Amino acid sequence: MTANEPFSRRVWHCIDGKTKPPGSLGKLEGLAAQIAEAQGVLRPAMDRAALLICIADHGIAAAGVSAYPQAVTAQMAHNFLAGGAAATAFARTLGVAVTLVDAGMREPLEHPRLLDRRIGAGTENFAKRPAMTAEQCELALRHGRDLAKATQCDALCLGEMGIGNTSSATLLAHKLLGLPLAKLTGPGTGLDAQGVAHKLGVLERAAARTAARLEPKAALAEYGGFEIAMLAGAIAGAAESPRMIVVDGFIATAAALAALQLAPECRGRLVFSHLGAEPGHGLVLDALEASPLLQLGLRLGEGTGALLAWPLLRAAAAMLTGMASFEEAGVSGKLP
Amino acid sequence: MTANEPFSRRVWHCIDGKTKPPGSLGKLEGLAAQIAEAQGVLRPAMDRAALLICIADHGIAAAGVSAYPQAVTAQMAHNFLAGGAAATAFARTLGVAVTLVDAGMREPLEHPRLLDRRIGAGTENFAKRPAMTAEQCELALRHGRDLAKATQCDALCLGEMGIGNTSSATLLAHKLLGLPLAKLTGPGTGLDAQGVAHKLGVLERAAARTAARLEPKAALAEYGGFEIAMLAGAIAGAAESPRMIVVDGFIATAAALAALQLAPECRGRLVFSHLGAEPGHGLVLDALEASPLLQLGLRLGEGTGALLAWPLLRAAAAMLTGMASFEEAGVSGKLP
Repeated sequence: MTANEPFSRRVWHCIDGKTKPPGSLGKLEGLAAQIAEAQGVLRPAMDRAALLICIADHGIAAAGVSAYPQAVTAQMAHNFLAGGAAATAFARTLGVAVTLVDAGMREPLEHPRLLDRRIGAGTENFAKRPAMTAEQCELALRHGRDLAKATQCDALCLGEMGIGNTSSATLLAHKLLGLPLAKLTGPGTGLDAQGVAHKLGVLERAAARTAARLEPKAALAEYGGFEIAMLAGAIAGAAESPRMIVVDGFIATAAALAALQLAPECRGRLVFSHLGAEPGHGLVLDALEASPLLQLGLRLGEGTGALLAWPLLRAAAAMLTGMASFEEAGVSGKLP
Repeated sequence: MTANEPFSRRVWHCIDGKTKPPGSLGKLEGLAAQIAEAQGVLRPAMDRAALLICIADHGIAAAGVSAYPQAVTAQMAHNFLAGGAAATAFARTLGVAVTLVDAGMREPLEHPRLLDRRIGAGTENFAKRPAMTAEQCELALRHGRDLAKATQCDALCLGEMGIGNTSSATLLAHKLLGLPLAKLTGPGTGLDAQGVAHKLGVLERAAARTAARLEPKAALAEYGGFEIAMLAGAIAGAAESPRMIVVDGFIATAAALAALQLAPECRGRLVFSHLGAEPGHGLVLDALEASPLLQLGLRLGEGTGALLAWPLLRAAAAMLTGMASFEEAGVSGKLP
């Protein structure tokens, strides 16, 4: 931002000159400035969004950390392909194109609309051993970067599906930020108190396998999911393009956390769409000094929160492209 | 709701059967249920929104309660007609049709797209005398009801423009709820601390003219604006139609407060779109036990918050119309 300070000042001069009291569009004003600065223009385009959903299985599911059986990952992949999931229903309504990626489900699933970027047949059970090898982690990061690059849009919404992946996100937050597991661990898709206590025990034992803090690639390899590493790659490469990356819930935010440690320059492209119900989400957002746009109590993932924030990006850009200035409209300014 | 309890149960059975953990779409689930119950169907339509902006002048503006000169009301009417205001820019981007109504600006403004429902040439200065007569109040309520009825849509967003109208909304909240003026009074479009103190003094003197509490029609006549009474009429008639009424910021919420006291049966049709920055807004929402969808720090009015919430109504309906059930999709339910 500092290198671009004169342009940033021009953007804010433009926003403050629009026919509204300065600051009266709240968070949308900062969002508009962010979009304009990413695109380097005072009239940014925000016409097309895309949703990338990466799907993978998690070995940790065998430890009984989810309220749903592991088979649901593949069943939901079919549901996405048939358009019956929340994310696909929202995307249809909001006019957002969806790309579905098999990042490593247990079983391959042949379908013309499912991209094969399989890193493996699900991760290893990270309670016992690293979730993936360093090579698998690198491959997932690279695939994520390439997938993002290949998607035509002004805003890329990121979603995921993978039974067990709040456990993975929880350990990433723990190892990358040093936050206590007891505060980060939550019900995920719907564990009861006993289930959360069991999950916490599993995660504490898994955490004890490695050093208290890990570098991002090590953390992803030890505790990541293939879909999470792929999203991290998509985010880490964001500075290469003027498009915005719309980060979804706890899982996608954990991927963003890893990506930001790998490539801090991507920060300006990231829009944190919502504060989810999983307790770790707010803690990670706070650590990132990210103020999410929506607080709707969502806890589904799939990119649903990112999709719901997409119209806010459109409106923010419309502030710059569609609103008149006081001067243009002949509207009087504030009284002296 | 009680009379319809079996249908309400069917709706929730349907929502809970969709392929997502129960409750995982947070506030959207209650919104989906509200829409389905209003329409009386399990697959509600939410295809078309309209925005009704009522514009009027306020005699109280002469008391120096706004950061902007009164001339801005008419200037902004021109800006709406030219499409350069925030609300019209957002509406264009979101595909929402806008109806502009002169509810009583100081000077008439001839324009083919401005509906003439003038109740007077601005209200009287309510610091000294009633803002309008009982007959004017009745006429404004009736026009509002008729305008809403005549608008074809699944969701009617309500907006307003009128320099000085946070003062009017503040007194309505004070007289209808008994909340202290000192807590309700805020900067409106951008008064500084000295300006807010002056505004509070003016409102306290104005409040002293009448009884501590007033009935809704008396409060509207004493302290209302023509645009506020018109919005109150649009809201009070809402139960006649299955469409949702999307309430905007502090001013529209004050109109909703009056409408709910006049016609409590409209409650089920109302969606409170956002929590604005004006301090009185949160207090009135709390008094109405309304949980707004968005918290973006908006303080502009015009229907901007209602417009930004419109995609959430679409998504909520899409949950019911577009998502598969666990059974339809062959997805396993929660583990026992």
